[in-house]
Order: sequence, then C-alpha cells, then structure tokens
Amino acid sequence: MKKINVAIVGASGYTGLELIKLLINHPNFNLSYVGTSEGGMNISDLHPSLLNTVNMRVQKSKPKEIAKECELAFLALPHKTAMEFAKELLKLGVKVVDLSADYRLSLENYEKHYGAHLDKEHLKNAVYGLPEINKEKIKKASLVANPGCYPTASILALLPFKSFIKENTPIFIDAKSGVSGRGKKVSENEHFVHVNENFISYSALKHRHEPEIAEVLNQNGIKNSIYFVPHLLPLTRGMLISAYIQVKEAIDAKKVLTKFYENEKFIRIRDEAVSIKMTAGTNFCDIFAESKDDIVFVSSSIDNLLRGASSQALTNANLMFGFDEDLGVPKIGYVP
Amino acid sequence: MKKINVAIVGASGYTGLELIKLLINHPNFNLSYVGTSEGGMNISDLHPSLLNTVNMRVQKSKPKEIAKECELAFLALPHKTAMEFAKELLKLGVKVVDLSADYRLSLENYEKHYGAHLDKEHLKNAVYGLPEINKEKIKKASLVANPGCYPTASILALLPFKSFIKENTPIFIDAKSGVSGRGKKVSENEHFVHVNENFISYSALKHRHEPEIAEVLNQNGIKNSIYFVPHLLPLTRGMLISAYIQVKEAIDAKKVLTKFYENEKFIRIRDEAVSIKMTAGTNFCDIFAESKDDIVFVSSSIDNLLRGASSQALTNANLMFGFDEDLGVPKIGYVP
Amino acid sequence: MKKINVAIVGASGYTGLELIKLLINHPNFNLSYVGTSEGGMNISDLHPSLLNTVNMRVQKSKPKEIAKECELAFLALPHKTAMEFAKELLKLGVKVVDLSADYRLSLENYEKHYGAHLDKEHLKNAVYGLPEINKEKIKKASLVANPGCYPTASILALLPFKSFIKENTPIFIDAKSGVSGRGKKVSENEHFVHVNENFISYSALKHRHEPEIAEVLNQNGIKNSIYFVPHLLPLTRGMLISAYIQVKEAIDAKKVLTKFYENEKFIRIRDEAVSIKMTAGTNFCDIFAESKDDIVFVSSSIDNLLRGASSQALTNANLMFGFDEDLGVPKIGYVP
Amino acid sequence: MKKINVAIVGASGYTGLELIKLLINHPNFNLSYVGTSEGGMNISDLHPSLLNTVNMRVQKSKPKEIAKECELAFLALPHKTAMEFAKELLKLGVKVVDLSADYRLSLENYEKHYGAHLDKEHLKNAVYGLPEINKEKIKKASLVANPGCYPTASILALLPFKSFIKENTPIFIDAKSGVSGRGKKVSENEHFVHVNENFISYSALKHRHEPEIAEVLNQNGIKNSIYFVPHLLPLTRGMLISAYIQVKEAIDAKKVLTKFYENEKFIRIRDEAVSIKMTAGTNFCDIFAESKDDIVFVSSSIDNLLRGASSQALTNANLMFGFDEDLGVPKIGYVP
Repeated sequence: MKKINVAIVGASGYTGLELIKLLINHPNFNLSYVGTSEGGMNISDLHPSLLNTVNMRVQKSKPKEIAKECELAFLALPHKTAMEFAKELLKLGVKVVDLSADYRLSLENYEKHYGAHLDKEHLKNAVYGLPEINKEKIKKASLVANPGCYPTASILALLPFKSFIKENTPIFIDAKSGVSGRGKKVSENEHFVHVNENFISYSALKHRHEPEIAEVLNQNGIKNSIYFVPHLLPLTRGMLISAYIQVKEAIDAKKVLTKFYENEKFIRIRDEAVSIKMTAGTNFCDIFAESKDDIVFVSSSIDNLLRGASSQALTNANLMFGFDEDLGVPKIGYVP
Repeated sequence: MKKINVAIVGASGYTGLELIKLLINHPNFNLSYVGTSEGGMNISDLHPSLLNTVNMRVQKSKPKEIAKECELAFLALPHKTAMEFAKELLKLGVKVVDLSADYRLSLENYEKHYGAHLDKEHLKNAVYGLPEINKEKIKKASLVANPGCYPTASILALLPFKSFIKENTPIFIDAKSGVSGRGKKVSENEHFVHVNENFISYSALKHRHEPEIAEVLNQNGIKNSIYFVPHLLPLTRGMLISAYIQVKEAIDAKKVLTKFYENEKFIRIRDEAVSIKMTAGTNFCDIFAESKDDIVFVSSSIDNLLRGASSQALTNANLMFGFDEDLGVPKIGYVP
Repeated sequence: MKKINVAIVGASGYTGLELIKLLINHPNFNLSYVGTSEGGMNISDLHPSLLNTVNMRVQKSKPKEIAKECELAFLALPHKTAMEFAKELLKLGVKVVDLSADYRLSLENYEKHYGAHLDKEHLKNAVYGLPEINKEKIKKASLVANPGCYPTASILALLPFKSFIKENTPIFIDAKSGVSGRGKKVSENEHFVHVNENFISYSALKHRHEPEIAEVLNQNGIKNSIYFVPHLLPLTRGMLISAYIQVKEAIDAKKVLTKFYENEKFIRIRDEAVSIKMTAGTNFCDIFAESKDDIVFVSSSIDNLLRGASSQALTNANLMFGFDEDLGVPKIGYVP
Repeated sequence: MKKINVAIVGASGYTGLELIKLLINHPNFNLSYVGTSEGGMNISDLHPSLLNTVNMRVQKSKPKEIAKECELAFLALPHKTAMEFAKELLKLGVKVVDLSADYRLSLENYEKHYGAHLDKEHLKNAVYGLPEINKEKIKKASLVANPGCYPTASILALLPFKSFIKENTPIFIDAKSGVSGRGKKVSENEHFVHVNENFISYSALKHRHEPEIAEVLNQNGIKNSIYFVPHLLPLTRGMLISAYIQVKEAIDAKKVLTKFYENEKFIRIRDEAVSIKMTAGTNFCDIFAESKDDIVFVSSSIDNLLRGASSQALTNANLMFGFDEDLGVPKIGYVP
C-alpha cells in the first residue's frame, strides 16, 4: 500500500514534537511536511533530541504547499491561528485534525469563552474526536476537533455513569496535570523553583475546559452542572482527574465501567487506584472507581500530551482513513 | 522565669525530629528528655542533620524517668503505643500532647476504626487540640489530642461555612499530601521510582482521617456527610486540600473566611490560590475560596509535619502552660 | 523469516521489564519464555503497566524448559545467580546475553571484587558486549557479558582519547545516576524523602564498576589509573558521567570524537553539553567534550536501563544472530 | 543594647528574600530599610510567603536615604550595579557587604572576566568575606566582598590540603547546584520541563567562578591550576562539589580536615558522604574526603542561598560589628 502523505502544522511545541515522534514510524502515514511559523531549519535543530533519528527540513507553514502533497494535516497551533489554517486547508481538500480548541464547542459556547469564530461554516461539520463516543462520525469526517486533555480524561471517566447520576446534583472534577500541559511558554509559573516541591490550583471554576466538558457530557446525556478545578503537579507528563458524583442508588461502579468499555482498546478499568505513571507514554486512559453510600468517586489517568493530544489525534487520523484505530499508537509506557 | 522541662517520646521519626528542632530553641520550654524505643545514642546519631547543633543523649523511653524531670511530654508514637505511655504519664502527673490518633475520636468511633481502646478514662477528658476551635479548653487540659494532618487542613477550611452549607448535601474533600506524611517506613510505596513523576489516590473513601474530620465537624455544627479521598504528591513536605460544598445561597466566601478568622494568628486568607510552598516550614494554614452558583470551592494548605503535627503540638503546649500561642512557633517558610 | 525464540530470565526487575518492552515488538525475535524465581502469574500482574498490552504467563525459570524452545536467553539476574543459569544454558546450547557482572571481568579481577567464580570455563570465552569495541567478536559469541551502566558511559567517553592521554596521569570520572540504577530493592537509600531534593556521592573510589572500567580501558590501550566516584541523582532514569583527562598536547576534542565514531549509529557527538533528558528512552550515547590547556573534559549521557542494560543487550543479541545492530532498538526518547 | 540599623538593597531576588528572613529576627540588627529598583510596595507583596510575618514598606533604593538611618547595607544586586551603590554608600560612611562579584577579584582578573571596574579605589581595601580564612580582616573591614557560592564550597574543601597537594598537578572541581542558584530570571533554561528529570553541565571550563576560586586559592598558597565544571541539579536549593587532587604522599584526609577546622563553628567534617539535604537551610559547610593511592576525593555541601550567599553575608556583618560570628545564623536545616 502506498503511504498517505501527512503534514504537521505547528511543529515547534510539545504536541508537535509528539506528532513527529509518532508519525516518523507510522506504517501507513508518511510525514512529508513539517511546518512552523518560521521554518528554515532541520527538525533536529528544532528538537535536538531527534538528532540522528530524523533528517528533514522544517517549512514555513503554507496551506497551498501542504495541499500539493498531503491528504491530511495535523494542526498543533494556538486557537484562532488553527482555524485560519483549517479553513484554507479544508477548502483545498486537505483533511484536518485540529488539536486546538477552535472546533470543539458550539458556536455560542466558543464565542462566549474564546471570542469571535472565523470559520463558522466548517464548525458545523466538525466532529469531536473522542473515539469512544464518536467513532463512526470520525470515520467520515473531514475535520476532527481533537478534544482537550482535561475533557478527554473527564468525559471518559464520567460518561459510563450517565444513567445512574442523580438529576440536579453537581458533578465535581478535581483535576491535576503535569507542567508539559502548559506548553513551552516561559513565565514565572513554569519556573522550576516555583513548580518544584509545590502544588497549586489555578483557574478554579473558571477554566475553559469546564464548558467543553459540560457541553460534551450534555450532548451525551449528562445534564448535570459541572464544577471543574485544575491543579498543577510538580512533574512533567501526565494527568489525573478525581471526580465525585451522586448516583440514584448504590451501584457496582467497576462493573458499570467494565461493561461500558468492553470493546475499547484504549480504556483499562483498574482494580486499584489509577496513577499517572501507568499511562505516561501511552494512549491508554486508565479508570478506577470506588463507591460509598450513593457517592461514586471515579478517577482517570492519561498522558496529557498523548491521549490528551497527539496520540489521540493519530487515532482520529487512523479512523478517518479507514485504518485500525490503534495503528502506530503507543501502548507501552515509560515505566519505570 | 525558669524554663519548663519537657520530654519527647518517640524521637526517631519525622515528627519527633521536628519537635526536637522546635524545642531546642524555645524560650520557655527546656527539652530535657528525648526518648526512643531503643535509646542509647546521641541525638546527632539519630538525626545526622543535627550534628554540632544539639548534643544530648537519647534515652530508652520510661514514664517514671520522664515524670521525675518533666512537666509535659510530647508523644510522637504509633497509635496504641501512645495510649500506653499517656495513661501512665498522666497518672504520674505529667501533661501530655499526643500526636497519635489515640485520643482524637469518641470511643465508639475509635474502636470502629482503630480497635480496642485501652485508656477510656483519660479519653473522656482529652481535648482535641485545634486551637482555632478549642483554645480555652486546651488552656485547661492535661491531655491534648493533637489533630491529624488531613483533619487540620480540612476542618480549618470548612468550619467557617457551617451556617451556609446546605443541609443533606455531601461535602467532598480531595486531599493531597507530600511523602513525609507516610513517615519513615520503607516499602514499595515510598520508593523514589514509584513516587517520582507519579500521582495516585489511596484509601479512597476509606481513610481513617475521614471519620475524624466528620466527627469534629459534626461536634461543631456541620452535620453533612464527608467524602474524603487522599492522594500522594511527588514532593517531600506539604499538604493541600480542595473541598467542594453546596451553600444555601450565593455567598462572598472570602468575606466569610476573613471574618471567621479575624483574630487568628496562624490563618492567612489568600486572594489567590493557596500553594504548598507558601506554608512549608511554618505553622500557617493558608485558605482560599472561589464560588460559582451555589458551589464553594475552598482550599487550604499546611505543612503536614508542622501545622499537621509538631508545630501545632507546640502551640497546644504553649496554651497549656499559659504562654502566647505563637511562642517559638515558626512563621517564616522555606521559600524559595 | 521465522522469528527466533528467546527467553528472559529474571523478569521482575527494571531491566527485565525493559527487555519485555523491547522484545514484544521486535521484528525478528519472539519472546517465548519469561521467567522469575517464583513464576505463576501473568506478566501484567508482575508489571501492571503492561495490562492489555501483553498477555503471557511468567514461568518459574528452568534452564531445561528454556532450552526446549529458545535459542537465546537474556539473564537479568543478580551476579552469582546469573552464572548458575548461564553455565547450564550454554551447555544446553542456548546462547546467553548476561546483564550481570559475572562474565565482564578477568577471573582475577572478578574474584577480587565479587568472590569465587563458579563458571571459569565459559568465562574464558565470554565477550564484553560493548558493540563499539567488540562488534566482530560479539557476532560470533555464544556468551556476551553485557557491560555495566557506568562502564558503558565511561568507556565510550574515554576510549577515543587513547592515543592522546598523557602517560601516568590519573583519569577522574565523576558519575551521576538516576535512582532506577539501584533496582527495585527497598531500603532507606531509595526512600523518596531521602533522595528527593538531595544529591550524594556513594562508594567513592570503591565502587565495583571502577575495576570494570579500568580493565576494559587497559585492554584497549588506556593504561592510566582510573578514579571513579558515583553520585545519586534525584531522578528516575538516566546517567551522566563527567571525566577529566590530561592530554599530551592541546587537541580538537570534538574532532577526535567525531572521527572515532564516524560509523557508529548509536553515538552522537554533541556541540553543546550533553544532558540526561536527550538520551532517556533510547540506546544513544551522547558525548560532548571541552578543552583548556592540556585538559579535556569529556561528558557522556546514556539511559542507564537501556544503553546501560537492556537495549544494549538487544543490540548484542541482534549482532549474535546476524541482524542489523539497531533492529528494534529505541532511538526516539521521552522528551519532553 | 541598641540594635544596629541595616539596609538590604536589591530585595526582590532569592538572596534578598533570604536576607529579609534572617534579619527580621536578628537580635542585634534591625532591618530598617528594604530597597528594590522600583520600590513602592509592601514586603509581603514582593514576597507573598511573608504575609502576616513582616509588615514593612519597600523603598526605591537611594544611597542617601540609606545613609540617614543605616550603618550597614547588604547589596543583593547584579554585578556592576552593586559597585555603583557600594561606591556611594561607602563615601557616605555606610559599611557594605556586597553579595555580587564586584569586589571579589583583583582588578586585573575582574576586568578580564567582567569588564571595566568603576570603583578601583574601594576595590583595594575590600576584604574577601570567607570567615574561615579572613576572620580578623573582616572584623576591621568597611567593605566585604561576599564570596560566590561555588567558590565558598570549593575553597573550604580544598584549602586544608594546601601543604599536601603535589606541585604542578591540576585540581578538578566537578560542581553541582540547585536551580535557585540561577536566580529568578525566566528563560528556557529554568523551565520546569527542561530541568526536571534532567542533569546537564554548563560553562564547562569557562565559568566565572573558576578564576575566583583560583585567585583565592593562589593567595592562600595553592598555586595549582583549577579546572571547574558546574552542573545543574533538578532541585531547588543546595550545592555539592566533588574535587579531585593529587597529593605528595598518602595522607589521612579526614584527620587533615578535622585539624584544619578544629575551631570553626560552621564546618562539619563528616564520616560519611556529604549530601545536599544535610546543609540545606543552614550556614554549615559539610566536608567529606576519601583517599586512594596518592589521590584525594574531597566533597563539600552547602546551601547555595545561605552559606553561598545570605547567611554568610550575615556572619560577615556580625564580625564587622564585633558580634559573635553565629549570631542569628541558621544551624537547623530543613530535613526531612
């Protein structure tokens, strides 16, 4: 089989790097275009860890150049910039997996939290790229909105309980992420001395992933209010969320989870507490639940850069081209 | 003024070390007896960081010896062992601050979670040593039960909202602690490779600090059910709890906190999210709250070994002897 | 091509885990036997991170069982135990890559540092498995002694300078390793609280890797005395050594390195200081040098569990069966 | 006794913060002036960890204002800026402890490594503030140049061996520092993701502390060439140096150290390897040595912000005013 040519637009950040790492060894995709806002260097100048493993020029990203050679583009760009590229690439017939927030929300919700939307036309047909809920739609999509990291972990943990959650009770999500989730930007908040031996919440009840979680859960039958508080962990990679729900009556939470995900390759229901280390380096989402009275504590762990971004983007691309969902997708973590 | 002679029983662990560090420079207490189960070495053999700063023999702990010279003993012992010492010391007229769980709970609750109680007589008169709620009682007490670390942080965060919390709604406490909270014991769970770059919940909805929190809140007017899940942070020292409550109507949470603690020296109400680093090394409890709809997120941070154990024990001892609560109690942290 | 059946003996430790991870996806080797001293569980019970990725029974290690199905065995065992297995496996016609110290040293040196050797016969024909110096010998070997982690990093950094080093001057190696190098054993020294925010030397001038480095360098033409001091880094994975040598006259150290390794796939000569992060997750050894007067500072970085153990063992196995040295060997690291 | 009024100029960085923490509780100094380049806020806005512990305005630093009220100023400023303040303050009769590099070196050496010197007059009379070698001179000084962190640790480790080191042999110093040594500046090099799980050398054989070490050792009788390579540790606070020397004949290194420092309060000669954790939070310098053949490995550990900067500055100030060297100087570390 001839490989499908694909592009990465926005290759300088962490998710761009992860996409490169996934695509240079993919059996069916050929990474033929790597772009940044500047271009003009070799990949191993951009990412010195790749010295002697990839030898490829980085381009200044241009949609027309991409369209000449690629059938699909991964956009690892800031929101707003992403939709500018997506709009043009889609018109040129290039399929898009967008890792930004630009196509994840309804127009109303987007404009409330992110400002004016500049590509309303494509927004209508964008598919939310969480394979466990939208597999068939993703297969037919030209534009997939890759979910946020916190929403991926949160939705996967909560969705199985949709018919059990008590109406009108709040759902609390206490989330924790490693520092790579903040990207490569350099500010006091990412300074080693600030983060190390520290732990801190941020954007409590005000984070933009809260409406994303709420909207997707709502569309999938969970109408309860969502209260979301993220925290910053003193570690590089990984994410864990702890959610608290009230159910109509006592349930066997593990059974509910196991049944809901019985055919899914990238969900592991754990007998013991999930941990960040168990999923780092993989596309797995590990889930664990514990009950008491009418309360269920459900916790999930993902790699924020992989399942929360780049490897999930790859599963979406696999589905869009009719390949096995797990083709070239990492299952073996970094442990120890 | 002549200094009061005091003893530390159980000096080999982390809280024992912190007590030593606090007491060797205390203006009114004289550390005259330091005991472990073995005895027979110098303090700087037991704690090499104290070389050239303290020169004192460690004894094999014996209540009668202690009673000969000391008016107060701090017990930094495992539960069960603590009550054996407390019982005898109290009979010999020595006041006791017990850092174990042995005198914190009602008899019923204790025996449900820890097994048979061997000193029911003194249990009746033990005072729960959280100065912000029991200051006057502590002043008159012979036996103070020093609160657990999670209960200290949780109760201080929640108590101010007692008249605002909606009846019959659950209170969720998502707690996170550094590894020193597990003590010096050596198992796979404390192995660096297991903890580092990791984050994990444990004893979800089953931790023995849950009934302690519930009982103390209940005694102080908060009758709601408590659901408590602790997590292990990849850092040495510090604790942060994130609690979620439903209130009867929207409130100004910061105002509630500020008013409630207006006369307290060791509570700081923060305008921005509290963090572990801000309290590490001190007896402070920092508190922050954020509201949305009828939900309040309240978060507190303490040093688990100081406010969560040894420096709180010292504030209790200060009160028991009529000294200023903050005498010799650390207020300047380790930042950066 | 039919895959070659291989065994891992001693699968419960970190290097055993790494071997499993490398072999389950290897194109030419089939992992057909996984043994521990106990056996009787599934691999994912032994290593929970592998849940849903490998489904295979772990055996109680028995040489005869191994010989029935396997052409090669990797021994990830403590020294002494390793030679018991190697001896028997070799007699049964199974090739061996031994990750322990048992066949790395001359008999005299071994017995001086490790005690009596129990397999002198095979010791004679064992090949020291550092591909950069012994590639042709490894190809013909039945028994390869996989180098220690510190020796791998040290020898690769120093060897290129053999014709430049001043006679009779000492060579100093200041080495630093992550905690995974200590294995899974649980003692105070691996306790998170002891290691975290700490840094400490150990076995200064007395470590058993010092004679290994000295002997191999000596055999390869560097007769100088070696002084070796390892230190423990507060991180999980990786190793960096800083070596100081005196040369006969000023040299262009980078040029020397580049020339020496021009045909090597797993050596990268860096223009800037090497770092642990750049090689973690790979079989690369990165090397950097800086000169001043007649002094050369040369520094190398490897992943202690991969290049320092398991992936180097795999390159040896590849060579022993006539495969490309880099077949199935990781080149893409964990960055970020 | 009336307290001596002192100023801190440059209070916004880490060493400024440490000075504040030391001085607000000092028995004989009164912190009466705290200045930054901006001024205009409360100390607890500048350093939020000090909320409710210090209540004091920060000034825009002006020498004349300082001279009105203070007898001594601590300068925690970048080099160049420091000498501008020192020059003026000294003229106004204010004693100065300068924590920058401006007065540490001979004119020639300074101008070679830092550029033109703007206060040659005072440079002549500046005393290098390492109490173990210059105690008497410090007592009489108006201007003390507080040593660099690496030089403090290195000189204290090496000086005892001055009569034993073989002539014309190089001395190698392999140094490691926590990230707080880089100050508060924000760049890619201090980004958590870059530092965490990493270890890297920098400025190998080119660091500006190398000539400082060499010059001071030379003045004190060690004429050998110094080769210095610093590395960045993934931790916040602390420094450890590992030095390698060749001696004329085998010596009892511990005995040499013990004798040399027998009257020093802030040197601890250790029987076992020194570690960063043992000195963090204190003014101690711990030293350990091990010998083999004619080689001595000597290693020292200090807190880079305290003994390497602020608490050493305080010991100098104590000496300058005739107080006990250890008055108000921390001896009890952060362990655990």
